[in-house]
Amino acid sequence: MQALDNIRIVLVETSHPGNIGAAARAAKTMGIQSLHMVKPRFFPHEDATAFASGAVDVLERAVLHDSLEAAVSDCRMVVGTTARRRTVNAPILLPDEAASNLVAAGEKQPVALVFGRERTGLTNSELDICQQLIEIPANPEYSSLNLAAAVQVLSYECRRAALNTSSEVSEQCSEPRDPTASAEQLEGLYGHLETVLIGTGFLDADNPRYLMRRLRRLFGRAGLDERELNILRGILSSVQNPHPPRAK
Amino acid sequence: MQALDNIRIVLVETSHPGNIGAAARAAKTMGIQSLHMVKPRFFPHEDATAFASGAVDVLERAVLHDSLEAAVSDCRMVVGTTARRRTVNAPILLPDEAASNLVAAGEKQPVALVFGRERTGLTNSELDICQQLIEIPANPEYSSLNLAAAVQVLSYECRRAALNTSSEVSEQCSEPRDPTASAEQLEGLYGHLETVLIGTGFLDADNPRYLMRRLRRLFGRAGLDERELNILRGILSSVQNPHPPRAK
Repeated sequence: MQALDNIRIVLVETSHPGNIGAAARAAKTMGIQSLHMVKPRFFPHEDATAFASGAVDVLERAVLHDSLEAAVSDCRMVVGTTARRRTVNAPILLPDEAASNLVAAGEKQPVALVFGRERTGLTNSELDICQQLIEIPANPEYSSLNLAAAVQVLSYECRRAALNTSSEVSEQCSEPRDPTASAEQLEGLYGHLETVLIGTGFLDADNPRYLMRRLRRLFGRAGLDERELNILRGILSSVQNPHPPRAK
Repeated sequence: MQALDNIRIVLVETSHPGNIGAAARAAKTMGIQSLHMVKPRFFPHEDATAFASGAVDVLERAVLHDSLEAAVSDCRMVVGTTARRRTVNAPILLPDEAASNLVAAGEKQPVALVFGRERTGLTNSELDICQQLIEIPANPEYSSLNLAAAVQVLSYECRRAALNTSSEVSEQCSEPRDPTASAEQLEGLYGHLETVLIGTGFLDADNPRYLMRRLRRLFGRAGLDERELNILRGILSSVQNPHPPRAK
């Protein structure tokens, strides 16, 4: 169950401290004990402690950050939760699919499962940091899961995936690959790509957003390893400073 | 989704009214709207209403009983939840197995999913009323799911089972995507990419194979759709014929 140790719950700007405690409890019951938070409104707080019940240790070890980017910088996979259809062309996965991906990617490296604000979820630029999105299939007439309830369902699916995955199977069936690129390395790639594409005139410097979002989705889906990332950076550098072959 | 209408959540002697409200919310988000209770300690109660959020209607329609026997008398299947191995002689199922059974039995008749007291669960004689028992596979070191969290997980599994049997799942959960690029279109992309990368000097014209193979694998993994393929072709063309933005 090594993968569960590498899964990090990230709560972004949670308003109600009770939800933080309940989320910590939910995660711990499923064996996930790493909690990171981006600017919680109140923390520490007595309500967080009360709702955490036997998971106060998870709160005590929680790590605080100023931005989602910082909270996931060392993560090899970042999966965000969303309650609404978005206009972005993100792959939206079912909980069990996303959990399998997280558990597979989390065998040896940290991965993140990101939850947005109670009312408004994640912003578009936060969603851009996520390589995959999950939507819990809910009642279309009332789809408003409480934050801790969403953490419970997804932590449960991660545990199920971890129980189903015998590490022997994954070792036998998956090709040996270079280490997966980190979120920080991916941001470096996207920044470089944007600069180059503005330079070639492909992107409108004033409004690069839409196309960049499509490209993030595409590379996010591919799950780049470090070597592939370096190849792509090399390509971008060669566009900036071409050394065309001599005519023969 | 007829089956979900026939699934009844039964809460036995719940102590905390907030848990009743949160359980109603959890069930409703998954499309389960029938709540029965056996001797709740406080009900109605402002905490129940507050935690129900948009599921107050479920509380308003809730039915109260004096015993579990009365609460499930018209049910064709009764499934109980348990946190511990019991000595009782009932099969203990995983949540997904039990949910499939409930959904199948609930196609035409009411069925019950029973939750015991927060601290002590169901008594042995209550367990005897249940034809099947569920255990949520939890962290052995901390298996204490909050009542509403347990309702959330099991309602989620019931919804999953109902979606699987009704084939609504693909409509509800998978985002419409552009058509996948054809093999021919992919070959066109790879040929274009190779030409451009030889042009920038990134690829050795005499031996482009190795890096092209890595790039094919990367884009193959991403599963490009036609629109993404056109974006990539557009990028390559912009490298060949740049139109850099004018300085401002």
